[in-house]
Amino acid sequence: MPNVMRREEIAFLLYDFLDLENLGSRPRYAEAGRDVYDAILESVERIAEDKFEPHAAKVDANEPTFDGETVSIIPDVKEALDSFSEAGLMGVSFDEAYGGLQLPYLLNTAISAWFGAANTGTHGYAGLTMAAGNLLAEHGDQEQKEIYLKPMIEGRYFGTMALSEPHAGSSVGDIRTRAEPQDDGRYRLFGNKMWISGADHEMSENIINLVLAKIPGGPPGVKGISLFIVPRYLIEADGSRGERNDIKLAGLNHKMGNRGTVNCVLNLGESGGAVGYLVGEPHKGLAQMFSMMNEMRIGVGLSAAATGYTGYLHALAYARDRTQGRPLTNRDPSSPMIPIIRHADVRRMLMQQKAYAEGAMALCFFAARLFDEAASGDGEAAEEADALLEMLTPIVKSWPSEFGLRTNESAVQVFGGAGYTRDYPVERLYRDNRLNHIHEGTRGIQGLDLLGRKVPMEGGKAFRLLMKKISETVAEASNSDDLRESAQALEKWSQLAAETTASMGAKAGQVDPETYLANATIYLDMLGHVVVGWLWLKQAQAALKAIETGGAAGDAYYDGKIKACQYFFRYEMPVIESQCALLVSMDRTCLEMDEAGF
Amino acid sequence: MPNVMRREEIAFLLYDFLDLENLGSRPRYAEAGRDVYDAILESVERIAEDKFEPHAAKVDANEPTFDGETVSIIPDVKEALDSFSEAGLMGVSFDEAYGGLQLPYLLNTAISAWFGAANTGTHGYAGLTMAAGNLLAEHGDQEQKEIYLKPMIEGRYFGTMALSEPHAGSSVGDIRTRAEPQDDGRYRLFGNKMWISGADHEMSENIINLVLAKIPGGPPGVKGISLFIVPRYLIEADGSRGERNDIKLAGLNHKMGNRGTVNCVLNLGESGGAVGYLVGEPHKGLAQMFSMMNEMRIGVGLSAAATGYTGYLHALAYARDRTQGRPLTNRDPSSPMIPIIRHADVRRMLMQQKAYAEGAMALCFFAARLFDEAASGDGEAAEEADALLEMLTPIVKSWPSEFGLRTNESAVQVFGGAGYTRDYPVERLYRDNRLNHIHEGTRGIQGLDLLGRKVPMEGGKAFRLLMKKISETVAEASNSDDLRESAQALEKWSQLAAETTASMGAKAGQVDPETYLANATIYLDMLGHVVVGWLWLKQAQAALKAIETGGAAGDAYYDGKIKACQYFFRYEMPVIESQCALLVSMDRTCLEMDEAGF
Repeated sequence: MPNVMRREEIAFLLYDFLDLENLGSRPRYAEAGRDVYDAILESVERIAEDKFEPHAAKVDANEPTFDGETVSIIPDVKEALDSFSEAGLMGVSFDEAYGGLQLPYLLNTAISAWFGAANTGTHGYAGLTMAAGNLLAEHGDQEQKEIYLKPMIEGRYFGTMALSEPHAGSSVGDIRTRAEPQDDGRYRLFGNKMWISGADHEMSENIINLVLAKIPGGPPGVKGISLFIVPRYLIEADGSRGERNDIKLAGLNHKMGNRGTVNCVLNLGESGGAVGYLVGEPHKGLAQMFSMMNEMRIGVGLSAAATGYTGYLHALAYARDRTQGRPLTNRDPSSPMIPIIRHADVRRMLMQQKAYAEGAMALCFFAARLFDEAASGDGEAAEEADALLEMLTPIVKSWPSEFGLRTNESAVQVFGGAGYTRDYPVERLYRDNRLNHIHEGTRGIQGLDLLGRKVPMEGGKAFRLLMKKISETVAEASNSDDLRESAQALEKWSQLAAETTASMGAKAGQVDPETYLANATIYLDMLGHVVVGWLWLKQAQAALKAIETGGAAGDAYYDGKIKACQYFFRYEMPVIESQCALLVSMDRTCLEMDEAGF
Repeated sequence: MPNVMRREEIAFLLYDFLDLENLGSRPRYAEAGRDVYDAILESVERIAEDKFEPHAAKVDANEPTFDGETVSIIPDVKEALDSFSEAGLMGVSFDEAYGGLQLPYLLNTAISAWFGAANTGTHGYAGLTMAAGNLLAEHGDQEQKEIYLKPMIEGRYFGTMALSEPHAGSSVGDIRTRAEPQDDGRYRLFGNKMWISGADHEMSENIINLVLAKIPGGPPGVKGISLFIVPRYLIEADGSRGERNDIKLAGLNHKMGNRGTVNCVLNLGESGGAVGYLVGEPHKGLAQMFSMMNEMRIGVGLSAAATGYTGYLHALAYARDRTQGRPLTNRDPSSPMIPIIRHADVRRMLMQQKAYAEGAMALCFFAARLFDEAASGDGEAAEEADALLEMLTPIVKSWPSEFGLRTNESAVQVFGGAGYTRDYPVERLYRDNRLNHIHEGTRGIQGLDLLGRKVPMEGGKAFRLLMKKISETVAEASNSDDLRESAQALEKWSQLAAETTASMGAKAGQVDPETYLANATIYLDMLGHVVVGWLWLKQAQAALKAIETGGAAGDAYYDGKIKACQYFFRYEMPVIESQCALLVSMDRTCLEMDEAGF
C-alpha cells in the first residue's frame, strides 16, 4: 500500500461523498466524465510518487540558500514542477479561454491533496501560482490575462501574494509600501515585504508578484490598499522577457518546516521604484486579494489535511509491520510478539488520526464542492453554497490546521523513538504542518472572522442555513439502524451549538465587543467539531450506500468509515459541551488578568 | 526579565508552595538554610544563563557527529558541563559519604528545572549521570560505589542507562543481550542496544553504562533480566583508566530535537565480550533499573515542564514587545498599534501557557517533595509520601509531556511567522519537547501503568489517599472568599474522578483486561488534570498567604497565580466530564475496528 495517498480515499470523496460525476456534467464544465478524471488522477499519482515525494526529505535537509545574488534550490523541485505543468495540471480548473481544462475545482482539490501529501513544500509553488492566476482571472483586465495569466497556466511563470511587511502581518491595514502613479499609467512601488513565499528563485521564466500597496493620498487603513502586478521581469510588447524589475531579495527566512517553499524578505524600489500595474480599481485591493486569500485559506486547510493524512498512512503501515509486546490476555514471554496495531492504545491513536485526517480532508473537499456549486449551480443553490462557503472558510482553514497537526503528532507517537528521528517522514510532516495555523490568517484571526463577521452576517442567515442542512442530514440518517446513534448525537450537539450561538448573540448587545469575542478561538474549535461531525455522518451515509451497491473499495474500507464516524461522535464530539458552557458564560478571566500577573 | 527561568517562580515553588526550609531542617539533610539554597541557586542562574543557554541553538544546528571512530560535539557542551560539575552541582542530593552535599532532592529538582529550561540537551548528560549515580547509591556494593559513584559525583565519569534494543523498546522483557558469567566473577556481554543517550563522546574520563542483559539459563521475560555496570574504559586497581571495553558505537540517531544529547546505537561483544559487573542479585535487574527509571520519569516530566515554561517566558516577552493592530473598541487606523498582549486571544494563549507550564512545574516539584518526605519523614508520613509518589509517577511523567508540548506549540503561535523561524528559540523548544512523550516509557505505557497497576495497588489505597489529600485541600480552601469557587470546582471534579474510578473498578472483574484498559491513556489525562487542578489550588493558597505576609515577589505575581488557578478550573478542568463519561462506558470502538478498516 502506498503511503502518500490512497486512491480509494480520493475516489470515495469525489464520487461517493460528493458526486463529482453529476457535478461535472453541468454546462460550466468541459465535457468530461469519470474516465477523464480517473486518467488525470492516475497521472497525478504517478507524478506525486515519482517526482514529488522522493525529494521531500532531501529539500527539507537542503533548504533553499541565497548567496547574495541568486537563490539555489535543489534541482528536484524544478523537475517536479515541470512534470506538473507538462501534465497540464496548472490549468485544471481554469477556463478554456486561457488554456485551462475548465474542470471542477473539486477535481483540482483532489489533485492538490495528492501533491500536498507527497510534498507540500514543492507543491506550494504550484498552489500559489494557481491562486494568483485565479485572482487575475477574476479581477485582471483582458491584457493582464493575456500577458500574465496564460503563461502562468502553462507553468512558465509562477505567482506569489505579497501582503505582509515586517511591522504588519495580521494588521494588514498598516502596510507602508507606497505606489506612486507614473505618467504612463504604471506605478512605482517603494517598500519592504516579509514572509513572501516563492518570491525569488530561478525555476520559472518569471515570477508574478501580486503586491498590496498604498497610493499616496488614499484613505487610511484597509480602505486605502490597492493591488498591483509586480513582475520580477518586465514583459516586452512582444511577450518576451524584458529588464529586471526593481524588486530585490533582501534575505530568506529559515523555517522549522515547509522548507522547500522559499520564503522571502523583499525590498521594492531601491533603484528608482518597482514597476507595478494596478489590478482593478484603486483602493479596492484588499477585497480583490481576499478572493485569492479565501482560496489560499482553503488551500492551507487542504495542505494541513493532506499532511495529516499521509502521516496517518505512514503510521498505519508502521503499526501493521512493527512487532512489540503481547496481548494483555497472553503474557507468556515465549510467545511471539504481535504487530503493534493490535495494542489498544495504538488502535486508539490510529482511529483518532483517521477521524481527524479523513474528517479534515472531507471538510476541504466539501468546501471545494461548495465553490463549484456557487460557480455552476442554479440560482438558489448557488447562492446557498456561496453563503455556506463564506461562513465555513475560517473553519476550513483552521480545523485541519489544528487536527491535522494533532494527527502528525500522534503519528510520531505510533513510531515511538523511530518517529522522533529523521529516518522516517513523520517528524518532518509534523514540522511542516505547524505552519498552517500561522500563515494566511492566524488561528486567532480566523476565530474573530467566524464569530465576529461570518456568524452574524445577514442576521445569521448562513449560520441558520448550516443548521438546516445539518437537520436534513440528521433526519435522513436517523432512518438507518447503522447510523441512528451518530445521527442522534449530531442532533444533540448541533442543537447545543445553535443554542450557544443564539445565547451569545442575545448577549452581544449587552457586552462590549472584547467580551463577546474574548473566546472566539474556542468558538471556532467548537463549531468546527460540529461541522466535521456533520460531514462524518455524511461520509458514513455515503459509505453505507457504497456497501449496499457493492462499491469498489470493499466492505472493510466502507465499514471503517462508519466506525470512524462512531468514534468521532463517541470520543471527540462531547468535548464541545464544556466549550459551549464556557462560551455562554462570556468569561473574562483572561481579559481581566493584570498584565504584570503573567 | 530573563527568559530562561524566573527566580521568583523557583522561590515560590520551593519556599511558599513546598516549604523547603522546614523540610531541609530534618536530620537527613546536611545543615543548611535558605541562605545556602539561595547561594546555590544564584550560581545555578549564572551558569545556566552564561554557559548553558548560549549554545542551545548552536548545538541544535550542529548536532553531534560520528566519523566512524570518534563522536564530535561542539566544545560548548563540555565547557558547560565542566562548570556544572565544578560548582558541585552533580552531588547536590547525594550523601556526604560519597562526596555529595546531602541536600533535599527538591532543591536538586529546582536546579534541574533551571538547566532544563536553559538547555535540556546539554543538561541531559548531567541528569543521566545523577540518575545512574542514584541507582548505584541504592543498589551497588561498597566497592562499586567507591570505583564508579564517587567520580560520577565529581563529574569525571558520566552515566547512562541502556535498556532498549532495536527489536525491544516498550517490550523490555524481550531483550536479547546476554551476559556470560566468567570465572573471575565478572561477565561478558554480547548484544545490541538502541536509543542510548550519552553513551559515546569524549567529554568525560569514562562513561558508566548501566546495561540490562540476560544471564543464560535464567527465567524468560522480565524475570530473567539482570543489571550490569559496563564502563566504556575498565578501571585499574589503582583507580586509573585501563583498557577500552568491548562496547562500540555502531551509529548515531538523528533526532527532530533534543539534539545536544548524543543518542547511540551500541554493539557489545564484537571482540570477545564487553566486561560487565553485576549489580545486586542476578535476575533482579528490572526492579533495580526501575529505581532509576522512576527518577528518570520525574526527570522527563521536569524537562517537559521546564521546556514549556521557558517557551512561555519567551512568548510573554515577545507579546509585551511586539505591536500589531488595535483594540476592538478602537479601529482608528491612525492611532498607534498596541502590544499584542492586549489582544484577547493572545492573552488567552498566554494564560493557557502559564496554567500548563506552571502547573507542570508544580507537579514535578511536588513529586520531588514527596521523594524527600519518603526519605526523611517519620513513619506514616514517609509511607504515605512513598505510596503517593508511586501512584503519581506516570502522571508526573506524562502530564508535563502533553501540556508542556502544548505550551510550546502555543508559544510558537504567539510569535506568529517569527515563531516558525529558527531566529527565535520557540520552534526549537517545541521540537525538543516532542521527545518527552516517547522516552522512558511512552504515554501509552504510562496509562497502562497508572490504570492497570498504580490505581488498583493495595486495593486502591494510594488512590484513596490522593482523594483524601484533595478533600483536605478543598476543605481548607473553601474558607477563603478568593478560593471558594476553585475549591468547589475541585470538589466536583475530583468526586467525578473518584466515582469514575470506582465504577471502572466495579466493572473490571466483569470485562476482559483489554476492555478495562482500552482507554487507559484517556484515564491518564483525566486524572492528571485532577491532580494538577489540586496543585493549582494549593499554589493559589500559597499565593494568598504570600500576599497576606507581604511576599517578596509582589502582589501582581501572586495574584497572577490565583487567576491562573481560576483559569485552570474554568477553562481546562471541565474537559474531564466527557472523558469520564467515556471511561465509565468501557467503550470498545477502537478495539472492535476491523484491522482492514483503518
